[in-house]
Amino acid sequence: HITKNLRKTAYISKRKIQSCKLFYSEDPVKILRARGQYLFDENGKRYLDCISNVHHVGHCHPSITKAAAAQMDLLNTNTRFLHDNVVLYADRLASTLPEKLCVFYFVNSGSEANDLALRLAQQYTQHRDVIVLDHAYHGHLMSLIDISPYKFRKLAGQKKWVHVAPLPDTYRGMYREDHPNPGQAYADKVKDLIDEVHGKGRKISAFFAESLPSVGGQIILPEGYSAKVAEYVRAAGGVFVADEVQTGFGRVGSHFWAFQLQGEGFCPDIVTMGKPMGNGHPLSCVATTAEIAGAFTANGVEYFNTFGGNPVSCAIGLAVLDVIEEEDLRGNATRVGAHLKDLLTKLQARHEIIGDVRGAGLFVGIELVSDREKRTPATKTAAWVVKRLKMDHQICVSTDGPWESVLKFKPPMCFSLEDAELVVQCIDRILTDTVTSPMITSQSSVNISAESSCIPLISAKSDYRMLIDPHTVIPKI
Amino acid sequence: HITKNLRKTAYISKRKIQSCKLFYSEDPVKILRARGQYLFDENGKRYLDCISNVHHVGHCHPSITKAAAAQMDLLNTNTRFLHDNVVLYADRLASTLPEKLCVFYFVNSGSEANDLALRLAQQYTQHRDVIVLDHAYHGHLMSLIDISPYKFRKLAGQKKWVHVAPLPDTYRGMYREDHPNPGQAYADKVKDLIDEVHGKGRKISAFFAESLPSVGGQIILPEGYSAKVAEYVRAAGGVFVADEVQTGFGRVGSHFWAFQLQGEGFCPDIVTMGKPMGNGHPLSCVATTAEIAGAFTANGVEYFNTFGGNPVSCAIGLAVLDVIEEEDLRGNATRVGAHLKDLLTKLQARHEIIGDVRGAGLFVGIELVSDREKRTPATKTAAWVVKRLKMDHQICVSTDGPWESVLKFKPPMCFSLEDAELVVQCIDRILTDTVTSPMITSQSSVNISAESSCIPLISAKSDYRMLIDPHTVIPKI
Repeated sequence: HITKNLRKTAYISKRKIQSCKLFYSEDPVKILRARGQYLFDENGKRYLDCISNVHHVGHCHPSITKAAAAQMDLLNTNTRFLHDNVVLYADRLASTLPEKLCVFYFVNSGSEANDLALRLAQQYTQHRDVIVLDHAYHGHLMSLIDISPYKFRKLAGQKKWVHVAPLPDTYRGMYREDHPNPGQAYADKVKDLIDEVHGKGRKISAFFAESLPSVGGQIILPEGYSAKVAEYVRAAGGVFVADEVQTGFGRVGSHFWAFQLQGEGFCPDIVTMGKPMGNGHPLSCVATTAEIAGAFTANGVEYFNTFGGNPVSCAIGLAVLDVIEEEDLRGNATRVGAHLKDLLTKLQARHEIIGDVRGAGLFVGIELVSDREKRTPATKTAAWVVKRLKMDHQICVSTDGPWESVLKFKPPMCFSLEDAELVVQCIDRILTDTVTSPMITSQSSVNISAESSCIPLISAKSDYRMLIDPHTVIPKI
Repeated sequence: HITKNLRKTAYISKRKIQSCKLFYSEDPVKILRARGQYLFDENGKRYLDCISNVHHVGHCHPSITKAAAAQMDLLNTNTRFLHDNVVLYADRLASTLPEKLCVFYFVNSGSEANDLALRLAQQYTQHRDVIVLDHAYHGHLMSLIDISPYKFRKLAGQKKWVHVAPLPDTYRGMYREDHPNPGQAYADKVKDLIDEVHGKGRKISAFFAESLPSVGGQIILPEGYSAKVAEYVRAAGGVFVADEVQTGFGRVGSHFWAFQLQGEGFCPDIVTMGKPMGNGHPLSCVATTAEIAGAFTANGVEYFNTFGGNPVSCAIGLAVLDVIEEEDLRGNATRVGAHLKDLLTKLQARHEIIGDVRGAGLFVGIELVSDREKRTPATKTAAWVVKRLKMDHQICVSTDGPWESVLKFKPPMCFSLEDAELVVQCIDRILTDTVTSPMITSQSSVNISAESSCIPLISAKSDYRMLIDPHTVIPKI
């Protein structure tokens, strides 16, 4: 059954419009195989993949497949039985983290990890309230929609126990690159929020943030921000949760974890991991301190996760760590990421529409603006660039940020210097064409100063991604 | 690293006491490989596995490993790209279900499935309140602890929007086997509860129940119960959610889903699936109607699950369905389950301590009681039987139920007639010994009529499982 190739039209009609959207819905891509940073469609056409951060060490890496198959053939019990893999894996992860993060809970998805992190924080602190960053997304579970402004603004709304701090975006936030100390200034906004919460007689359990806000627009947190926030949050009796679901495992190159970009002096109390951890296999983790884990265990109620930490998941996790080391993928992320940022910065000098280039390692964003002074998001041009990259050059890139005006790169970590050069050349060509195309320029921006215009744009997000369909499937109708 | 065999003592000390408990903590078993219904420890000793319902078609089935490895080598993108596997898999699942359950959401764990089911129910009905069965467990996520009396009684307590209906247990519940129509009588208790909820000005979104309550004690719902409850719940504007995480995929033999034991006339509005679905691979699903899915999609907010429905998970899911058919595992469950129940019923005639034998297919429970009249749970004897089965006969069985007095069988579906005969012989021998052992009989029961004595027993649950340790791991300390 598996290899039988359904005709695309029949297929698409079977995927009736549901909740999850397809990439390139106008002309969806049916990928049949993938290797490294390349995807191959049903006609054998090759696409360069700049977005699959899940496939961290490269699509279908033979070492990962081999490790998975070998362990699947041997044993895949749950963690009520002893097994070496889970201990070896925890040891290896521990060696990448500050010593105090020494307890590991293995789960199946970034969402499960963040839900557990929230439980740990609330149980340890015996407080309830949570501070999150504006535009944040922490997962699809009910508990996480509550702490994700990106979701709750469109759904149930903001809960009383959730408080939103400004996104420390030094390009378009309240404190910008010309501020003498934006890290301190944004952290002080968190302090103000804590005071406000205390004023209401409420108490902070956690500050919850991605180490590099992704849906927020590929944001690099300003220097000193996290350490200062941690200081304020701990003084209020809360803990600092670093969501590394998108950013961990060496993506930033210089460090294994993105929170480490904030300096030696900063260590979160809880770190959550996910997407890249199993190279596509459902594998995630929460790391925390012995003290927090102790408080969680103290009530005598066990936490058991059926699939979490099973020998196959751990064998895959170990193989991913091996490949990162053996192929020096962090070194590659540093070199290729720097080259990519350098080339894009040069491009910025020639294209007015490129307002900002930012990134760390292979986590890079290019923010397009129709007006450099006003920093007006060039949402439609961003969508246009994504579409042309796919149609004319077989390059997969997507957008992010509150206005979907940021082209984002988070490719498999084997992305090469040549790949970086190719994609920058293609963007150069497309942006050059765009300037001469009145069709685009006339519609390429929105005025973010007018609040009313933001609303349709946010809901127009589904257009941008040019997506129709579901991963929910109606097979019979 | 993976194959390196840590010394057991060092290993156990590394697994410091955390949240998840080990089987047989006094003398933990370190299993290195498994095949079919057999586990093999580090010394090559073979154990008969009567409890691994996750490893549904047998441990390490070569067809599953082959399908997984082949697809891992080819492609494992997410569902924003078109792929046949997810459509083929949804088609195959649809063919096992009533026609109205035609929309499928693929996720990574039973907990993710139940969380999504709750969202679907609440969004569709625009009501909030949930009715659950006493002692139920629906998962480890925050939203599910709220609807699991088994958990919330020991943690945060009962939320205002959660209402607990009596467990329709015809052995020790309020209506027993001597009642003319226990199905109707228990359903009427749900009706009373709905009226009570309405009296408070609240509204029911869902009735949430396992099709065969597992943690509740391997309960078989009385005839007519579910259809009647569904009628009451729908009249109140709510939906019926059947949690098939433990019971689906042919375990009951006669039917593919345990809810089908309640007759042709009954169809849930939402069905959640989990444990056996991927034979150990993290794979789960929510099936629902086009109407409920439509209401979920209508608000324009997408549901996206990073790993859910990926080509590898679906290839594994398809392979599991193939093996169930090719090896006639439902037929086997019917034959072996009936023989097991028959043998146990004969045993009951000779051992006063066996109060009840119940089951469907390879979902079987033996309830031990120290007094047949009073139906006093023989908790300690049940723990003793589990221990002796493991130590003297290398047979893995565990207990369930509010007093951990029910020996439960939910073995891999390839469990044979000979396996059933062996385990019954061994139980016979152990129970015969027990009668002559004053050490056991003196402590073998608790008086459930005295409420106070229940409390220590429930918290003594962790003793019963004879478990110490974690799947959370402290590697460095």
